Amino acid sequence: MSNAVTGASTKPTTRLSLNQKTVNSLGVVEAVELCQRHDIASIGLWREPVADHGLDATVELIKESGLRVSSLCRGGWFTATGQAFEDAIEANRRAIEEAQALEAACLCLVVGGLPDGSKDLGAARDQVRRALELLVPYAVDRGVTLALEPMNPIYAADRGVLSTLGQALDLCEPYGPEVGVMVDSFHVWWDPQLQDQLQRAGSRIVSYQICDWITPLPADTLLARGMMGDGHIDFAALGQLVAEAGYTGDIEVEIFNADIWAADPNQVVSTMIDRYAALC
Amino acid sequence: MSNAVTGASTKPTTRLSLNQKTVNSLGVVEAVELCQRHDIASIGLWREPVADHGLDATVELIKESGLRVSSLCRGGWFTATGQAFEDAIEANRRAIEEAQALEAACLCLVVGGLPDGSKDLGAARDQVRRALELLVPYAVDRGVTLALEPMNPIYAADRGVLSTLGQALDLCEPYGPEVGVMVDSFHVWWDPQLQDQLQRAGSRIVSYQICDWITPLPADTLLARGMMGDGHIDFAALGQLVAEAGYTGDIEVEIFNADIWAADPNQVVSTMIDRYAALC
Repeated sequence: MSNAVTGASTKPTTRLSLNQKTVNSLGVVEAVELCQRHDIASIGLWREPVADHGLDATVELIKESGLRVSSLCRGGWFTATGQAFEDAIEANRRAIEEAQALEAACLCLVVGGLPDGSKDLGAARDQVRRALELLVPYAVDRGVTLALEPMNPIYAADRGVLSTLGQALDLCEPYGPEVGVMVDSFHVWWDPQLQDQLQRAGSRIVSYQICDWITPLPADTLLARGMMGDGHIDFAALGQLVAEAGYTGDIEVEIFNADIWAADPNQVVSTMIDRYAALC
Repeated sequence: MSNAVTGASTKPTTRLSLNQKTVNSLGVVEAVELCQRHDIASIGLWREPVADHGLDATVELIKESGLRVSSLCRGGWFTATGQAFEDAIEANRRAIEEAQALEAACLCLVVGGLPDGSKDLGAARDQVRRALELLVPYAVDRGVTLALEPMNPIYAADRGVLSTLGQALDLCEPYGPEVGVMVDSFHVWWDPQLQDQLQRAGSRIVSYQICDWITPLPADTLLARGMMGDGHIDFAALGQLVAEAGYTGDIEVEIFNADIWAADPNQVVSTMIDRYAALC
């Protein structure tokens, strides 16, 4: 296993990050080793496996590895009501602390769907605004960047009432660079306003995640994401728009897919690197 | 069976239309009888069952029934290339003629997804514009209103590259009232710009279709639509926005759902009327 930083800036993996959800069966130790084995310099971490290994141990592991942490997934779930909303805010304070400790480039925020029994999208969206008001000062104090993730409307009811990049940017407006957007190809590829909103976003783009939109959609839509090249997204064109908007950070591959999760992680990452080099 | 026009304007079914896809097992004769049995004054027809019964026979059937035809489904599929595009235009001319013969309030246009092997959304969307240029004069000459149907982004790859009401209205801009939009709750309910774009649409709204967004989505996303009340859409709020935009036409229930298709059509329509009265 090698952790040598050998790459010139033209190395295909220079900006490539492995989101650990892509290799869902692995803990943080194995995921970090996998990155090192494949000369990948950045990783997107998830809070649950970080907690399994222990936050302090993970911080140490990451420091020793030399890896960048391109994102910590995830905070959010702001659309609960009453005490559950207060609990969510408190949980997000813990997530901010973890992102600070891990020196993550951003904390991903999946805002949540409609509360149980509610059909009031407007009210749920307002709660996202209120949650930001409560959390941004806490994030600023800790030097953590919050990344609002607009989600494909397929998830509007049950995962994310934030449906477009434009809507996410509206929510960013009151704030400085401590609040930005996570641009995920799966979520935004279809948007007729994509080019305009990416230009508008500019330095608000704090994360760029990629995976493909595949058809027919798998039965479990949460696991409906595909390896780049297996679906319909033009990654060269999207990557160019993101670059023209000024984004120069890591490009993180995050794939929820039962077949990919069942495959050999080494093979998954080899394919990921090949596809990234060829398409992205 | 009764075809008596007995209702005052307060009758719950006054503006209710049964799209025959909701009772997919029935031919046009049975679907018309079903409307009459339930005192529904309007029907949304599909071209395939109309062809099965014969266009002239269907025209006669509709005249005798006294039913309005709230829409003819469907034209479109403009995103093919080469000869297939020319064939699609020709097929749409036939659809326009059928809509004229049936005195349908509009011809629904499902524009089509990405062509096989293409990842160029922009090019596919441009073909919709080109198709309208070719078809609008033909529709104007026959007094037929074309209804562009923006579709939920879940279908952007394989059914409809037209993804938002705003985008559909942009395509309408060069034209007069001969081109409008079909507002389908399933397709538009999540849109953060919905209120603004409905206001912008005004008299461009030439059809209002309803069905619910249900979770978890059924495995076949084409059949993912639910009876009003079984999902997450606030029909009272949406209906009010559509009314405030000025729409006074029929409200058509179109449900693609395997369970509903397998159920007794009489029961489906009874439930539909009850839910419509309670929620819409």
